[in-house]
Amino acid sequence: MASESEPQRALQYEQTLMYGRYTQDLGTFAKDEAARLRLQEGDTPQPRSPSELLEYTQGRCGPCRVCALQCQRFLISRVGEDWVFLILLGLVMALVSWAMDFAIATCLQAQKWMYGGLDTNVLLQYMAWVTYPTVLITFSAGFTQILAPQAVGSGIPEMKTILRGVVLKEYLTFKTFVAKVIGLTCALGSGMPLGKEGPFVHIASMCATLLSRFLSLFGGFYENEARNIEMLAAACAVGVGCCFAAPIGGVLFSIEVTSTFFAVRNYWRGFFAATFSAFIFRVLAVWNKDEETITALFKTRFRLDFPFDLQELPAFAVIGIASGFGGALFVYFNRKIVKFMRRQKAINRFLMKKRLLFPALVTLIISTLTFPPGFGQFMAGQLTQKDTLVTLFDNQTWTKQGINDEFEYLGILEAWLHPRSNVFVTLVVFILMKFWMSALATTIPVPCGAFMPVFVIGAAFGRLVGESMAAWFPDGIQTDSNTYRIVPGGYAVVGAAALSGAVTHTVSTAVIVFELTGQMSHILPVMIAVILANAVAQSLQPSLYDSIIRIKKLPYLPELGWGHHEKYNVRVEDIMVRDIHYVTLNCKYRDLQQVLHSTKMKNLPLVESAESMILLGSIERAQVGALLSTQLSPQRRLLMLRQNVLPEDGHQLSDSSLRFQVSTETSSGAPARTSLRKPLKPALKRASSSPADSPPAGGTDQTGIALKSLFCANATPEAFEEEMILGDKMTPAEIREWEEQQLDQLVDFSNAKIDPAPFQLVEHTSLHKTHTIFSLLGLDHAFVTSIGRLVGMVSLKELRKAIEGSLTGKGVKVRPPLASFRDSTASSSEADTAALRRFWERHQHHHMPREAGPGGDEDDNTPKGQ
Amino acid sequence: MASESEPQRALQYEQTLMYGRYTQDLGTFAKDEAARLRLQEGDTPQPRSPSELLEYTQGRCGPCRVCALQCQRFLISRVGEDWVFLILLGLVMALVSWAMDFAIATCLQAQKWMYGGLDTNVLLQYMAWVTYPTVLITFSAGFTQILAPQAVGSGIPEMKTILRGVVLKEYLTFKTFVAKVIGLTCALGSGMPLGKEGPFVHIASMCATLLSRFLSLFGGFYENEARNIEMLAAACAVGVGCCFAAPIGGVLFSIEVTSTFFAVRNYWRGFFAATFSAFIFRVLAVWNKDEETITALFKTRFRLDFPFDLQELPAFAVIGIASGFGGALFVYFNRKIVKFMRRQKAINRFLMKKRLLFPALVTLIISTLTFPPGFGQFMAGQLTQKDTLVTLFDNQTWTKQGINDEFEYLGILEAWLHPRSNVFVTLVVFILMKFWMSALATTIPVPCGAFMPVFVIGAAFGRLVGESMAAWFPDGIQTDSNTYRIVPGGYAVVGAAALSGAVTHTVSTAVIVFELTGQMSHILPVMIAVILANAVAQSLQPSLYDSIIRIKKLPYLPELGWGHHEKYNVRVEDIMVRDIHYVTLNCKYRDLQQVLHSTKMKNLPLVESAESMILLGSIERAQVGALLSTQLSPQRRLLMLRQNVLPEDGHQLSDSSLRFQVSTETSSGAPARTSLRKPLKPALKRASSSPADSPPAGGTDQTGIALKSLFCANATPEAFEEEMILGDKMTPAEIREWEEQQLDQLVDFSNAKIDPAPFQLVEHTSLHKTHTIFSLLGLDHAFVTSIGRLVGMVSLKELRKAIEGSLTGKGVKVRPPLASFRDSTASSSEADTAALRRFWERHQHHHMPREAGPGGDEDDNTPKGQ
Repeated sequence: MASESEPQRALQYEQTLMYGRYTQDLGTFAKDEAARLRLQEGDTPQPRSPSELLEYTQGRCGPCRVCALQCQRFLISRVGEDWVFLILLGLVMALVSWAMDFAIATCLQAQKWMYGGLDTNVLLQYMAWVTYPTVLITFSAGFTQILAPQAVGSGIPEMKTILRGVVLKEYLTFKTFVAKVIGLTCALGSGMPLGKEGPFVHIASMCATLLSRFLSLFGGFYENEARNIEMLAAACAVGVGCCFAAPIGGVLFSIEVTSTFFAVRNYWRGFFAATFSAFIFRVLAVWNKDEETITALFKTRFRLDFPFDLQELPAFAVIGIASGFGGALFVYFNRKIVKFMRRQKAINRFLMKKRLLFPALVTLIISTLTFPPGFGQFMAGQLTQKDTLVTLFDNQTWTKQGINDEFEYLGILEAWLHPRSNVFVTLVVFILMKFWMSALATTIPVPCGAFMPVFVIGAAFGRLVGESMAAWFPDGIQTDSNTYRIVPGGYAVVGAAALSGAVTHTVSTAVIVFELTGQMSHILPVMIAVILANAVAQSLQPSLYDSIIRIKKLPYLPELGWGHHEKYNVRVEDIMVRDIHYVTLNCKYRDLQQVLHSTKMKNLPLVESAESMILLGSIERAQVGALLSTQLSPQRRLLMLRQNVLPEDGHQLSDSSLRFQVSTETSSGAPARTSLRKPLKPALKRASSSPADSPPAGGTDQTGIALKSLFCANATPEAFEEEMILGDKMTPAEIREWEEQQLDQLVDFSNAKIDPAPFQLVEHTSLHKTHTIFSLLGLDHAFVTSIGRLVGMVSLKELRKAIEGSLTGKGVKVRPPLASFRDSTASSSEADTAALRRFWERHQHHHMPREAGPGGDEDDNTPKGQ
Repeated sequence: MASESEPQRALQYEQTLMYGRYTQDLGTFAKDEAARLRLQEGDTPQPRSPSELLEYTQGRCGPCRVCALQCQRFLISRVGEDWVFLILLGLVMALVSWAMDFAIATCLQAQKWMYGGLDTNVLLQYMAWVTYPTVLITFSAGFTQILAPQAVGSGIPEMKTILRGVVLKEYLTFKTFVAKVIGLTCALGSGMPLGKEGPFVHIASMCATLLSRFLSLFGGFYENEARNIEMLAAACAVGVGCCFAAPIGGVLFSIEVTSTFFAVRNYWRGFFAATFSAFIFRVLAVWNKDEETITALFKTRFRLDFPFDLQELPAFAVIGIASGFGGALFVYFNRKIVKFMRRQKAINRFLMKKRLLFPALVTLIISTLTFPPGFGQFMAGQLTQKDTLVTLFDNQTWTKQGINDEFEYLGILEAWLHPRSNVFVTLVVFILMKFWMSALATTIPVPCGAFMPVFVIGAAFGRLVGESMAAWFPDGIQTDSNTYRIVPGGYAVVGAAALSGAVTHTVSTAVIVFELTGQMSHILPVMIAVILANAVAQSLQPSLYDSIIRIKKLPYLPELGWGHHEKYNVRVEDIMVRDIHYVTLNCKYRDLQQVLHSTKMKNLPLVESAESMILLGSIERAQVGALLSTQLSPQRRLLMLRQNVLPEDGHQLSDSSLRFQVSTETSSGAPARTSLRKPLKPALKRASSSPADSPPAGGTDQTGIALKSLFCANATPEAFEEEMILGDKMTPAEIREWEEQQLDQLVDFSNAKIDPAPFQLVEHTSLHKTHTIFSLLGLDHAFVTSIGRLVGMVSLKELRKAIEGSLTGKGVKVRPPLASFRDSTASSSEADTAALRRFWERHQHHHMPREAGPGGDEDDNTPKGQ
């Protein structure tokens, strides 16, 4: 919608061609439209969808842009724009991460201070302990809800979906950024068992989007969508990297949780940005005198020469397997809670307060149970998440041992000691309580992740096993020469990696724990435990992120799983839809109408003829509708009428130039076809949040009786005005007759946007390969051909059904990936047409039930049409 | 070739369909051929190419297979075959790695022992020091040369090519395995600056291939090619993992050096196998009492609380940048030596001895220079590679410092101390000498890698910088509270990672050093140095592996590089070949002939007609040749003749059934078309190493005059016999007339194998996207279409030209990837036809220069044909 110069148009155009797609015709029509758009520029500055902004932002300030461009182009070509972008991204994210950590620490300190200062009265202490997090969480939930509900939750599932090529609306905007940052700070400051990893992935992605919007003011390189996807992938790595100061683990974790196929050429981007970000993040801590130098976040000091004995390996394996079951249980539990809550919410939808009641209630329960003088004393309730981890990774053995009994619980370690119970009870209670608390807390509608809580639970479980081992072998494991005592802290590291790996279905948690602790001595136990945990968890439940994707009904393609060999035997011909509707090259408009009536497919195959069935390309449903509405548009009808009246004009004008003439004449600039991209009026704003390019299926066929059931009018005042000026001099019967006559004409595809190379498969392609191709290219459908002839079609739905064995509910329709331009139009079209239809029908019933006259605000004009 | 049951045939068939390719027609023809092949089974057990073996190995022992299959199928379905395979692979590779390490250590010990025992006479000492490695290297070179020349070199470049989908012959066979293992052991045992990493990747891949061959005796799941590619990727990870006991680094390094796009779903495979392998590798060391428990290979003991100060970071950055330049220089140097040697070799090709002279000479020079009492005393010559690394990673500072002067060079550290010089001189000499020595040594034609030598040089360089820093700041860096001294060992770690990262263009060397040293305290310095080294090296030179790929002229697709934004502006229409030759559906055989004459394309587009140009599919060149040779085959001619003679047969038999009849009649079972897959006789064995399915372009047109210039006869004795039996009752003039007449017939495509869904692009696709698609799908060509009409074609060659800006020499023609079945036939066809033509022409000149009679061993038959 912004005025792009011609080369930039071409760039955009290329983007949408990724994987053989085609959305824009560069012929005369496109040029006309570009000219028209340039005229319309600055007309209606409507809110834009994020993806749109990525592509179109530049060019608001025409003349200054040219100057800035020339200056910047030199700089950009010198510096290498990828570096600049990644360094800026890393810097910004490190600052955000550090500032948030600082704010969270202050919040937690404040709670501790309140709690400590009121130690004269337990009731007051309790009030302070409970009220503080409740207020914070409620504020976080309310703030997020009001500003940007998209900011709720982890963000990794959504980023996975976005990186697959689907455009999620309003997901990467500044508003969401603010909501997420503030909401997350409050949520974590409350001391609830919530994490910052997932939200940080989201924050980093928003940061990257906003940064590229900002930088695109200076140059054009930031506008390429493929590039943006690459940058988003790097941003995910930065998010994890600067959250844990773990650049390598960050890159690997982000690859594992967001990608299906990873381009190795993007590898360095992630490493570069994540390293820089982690570096700055840690340097900030040094400058702030928190640390003396750059070290690991949760530095451990296990002995290096003999970290563990071979005989301890079974215990590590046990941790792995148990963590696998625990992880699957966590995912299951989390999903059950969400589903239960959703049902509740559906009933209690009417009250905004009600929505905030749930977070407040959950916080109340959790903080009551962790109240240190109360039940909290049995589960180290006064420790913050960070302190808990520090103590769990502690180097010493907590249980009293034969040889050295002098160990004292000092400082924060005291929390784990209870005079009337022992460390084992505390650990068991901690694990059990934290388990359901974390699963529950992560369902609160605030920005939050589940990684850290799970990590802490895993560490506690590992510590439990380690302390048990230490108690079992108080003298340590005997080897030939020396006696080495068991290090329970090492078990805690293993447990943390295993449980978080099981919940997220990743193996890179191993790398994250190494980076967090700064030690690699336990590499083999960690790897073994993580792999076993993954094996168990993956066979029982989807990962937490996939589970959320399914709950949220985001488009997805299920993984084939560990043992997917049977998928080699299923073929495309077994799962494809054979009975598909198609458009032939020599069809009539009536056929188009019939096809639109009979199918809901987003893309229709275009074949040469019904006999040959040679696939020529695919045409979007919206395009077919546009063709039809153009053919039956009142403008065209009136033009024809005028031509019949004034036949002395002699030379037959071409269709498009004629239409263009009309649009200048009426000075409203909305001819039938070009109005495809016309912004809707504010009256309809709520129906579509990014209406700037939304109603491709509409058209302005106010009088198109035959089309009424399919599309409704884009009943804008201009159109009515135009209608009024041109005058509707035909009776309904005449109109119907004219339309019937028009429907019998052959379709002119010359101006239609046709995707000339839709993806084709052959009948015998295996399911396994189809899955590979679909995930590689991010397809949502493919035509099945046999030597050029169309024989069927397979879409994500069929594929999903085939992989999962059965249909798992309706789910969201999958939009064409990597084509945000077309996407944002296609996805909004249905909602728009529905809204339009309602709007239209209301006015229609008011005035003339069965008449195709224009309705709306200018009802005084309607009689004129008769 | 082997008798597969029907579902397995289908499986194979599906493999080749990956990415819309098509190689086999499942119609009647295929069934006939399958029946025929089953009859022919066990006929000629020829050596098979590795890829073939992967697919076809099972089924030698028909009846016992059925029984074993039923038993195994149950077991396999229970155990989960991926696990079994990966565990076995890990186990085998760990054993191989450990055994080789043991043998290498023994070899090195023997040299030390000899050298130590002869300390009475320097000359004798020198002789022992020099002769021992020379003999070993010469043996290694000779042994490898004789047994399997494919085993020479690193193996990573070839694995990268194979994982791209190209089939390299004899590259993954048992013979090569033996040659590589023994050759590598000898080469490393000689003490030359060579590495084992690259060869281990190759060894692991061969191991995986052989293992899957072995396991496929029990079940059919190992036959899927997509699966095999996945397993090869895992094997590469295992290779690196068990070489360094670095599972994570192994996986990442193997991904970086071998993949372009990585499937995250294969991630766990690599981790699983590499972890298991590394575990077993280290457990073996414990069981052998080499170690007390599982620890890192080159364990370091740097202090944990303050590993480095922020003020040291510039020094680390300097190491990174200098390593970048050094790495690029190494690659450049290595390539120059290879190119120089290659020119020499071209001159001195005639002598086998000459080939062994080069390795011997190089070894002599290097070992002379490292002779400890000689020049070696200035470069720590007596240390093995392992000892060098241990000393370089040493915790102490070598230079004398103000506060503690008591440091003594103990044990192996003595080697770095020279009474008449200081440590700096030793280090500088070591770096300079080892640099050219390593670059030279890695060009010796023995199995060897360059990673370890480069790693050692990098460590030495890092140590040099570290010692300099320690000398510069003898009291360490001052901070507020404490004074920490500089740890030069940490600099060595950084240097090692940076230089090896620069040479290989990877960032995962950082992970490898962490795993090798067991410490992560230097993570940020290492990451910064590695990234800077990569940035510098990547902008100057290709990686060592890409350099070797170019030297060896393996098919490759260059990377787009760091700043590739200008590639967004180049479009396919700018680089595509417009003037392409095509086959029309309604063409005549004469047209086919003309197309074959006028183009060398491996795949010809099949269009509907020259007017419409609608692309229906693509047909292989070999197929076109087969169609033509079938049409002009003497069998067909004689059949026609016989039919004319015996017209009373009444019912017109179908073409194929007729041919089948003939083949049973003559009992040689080689009708024209089916002979496409017929094994060549041993007489031609040298020309093609896997002839079992090689001559698709051949056919048996001994008398096809018109075809002579294109194909030559598959002149097997059976064919001659057949020819003889059928009798050639036509004169050459008659034959020519008959052929001319045949050429005017319309082509019957009904039995031809047509790929119905070749990959299509549209004209406006950007170069960047084309590159992505080509690397994603491993394409070698794509047709450019515009609404179904063929307008051009783009192949790897054009793409390479466009990316590199100019053509870099002829290079090897790229074969269709991920279609080893078709590949092994297509790739061998040219060599075969060339050999056949020579063979043919020799005999032709001998007997009848211009006559199309059969020649060869049975020359007594030739007059009979007249």
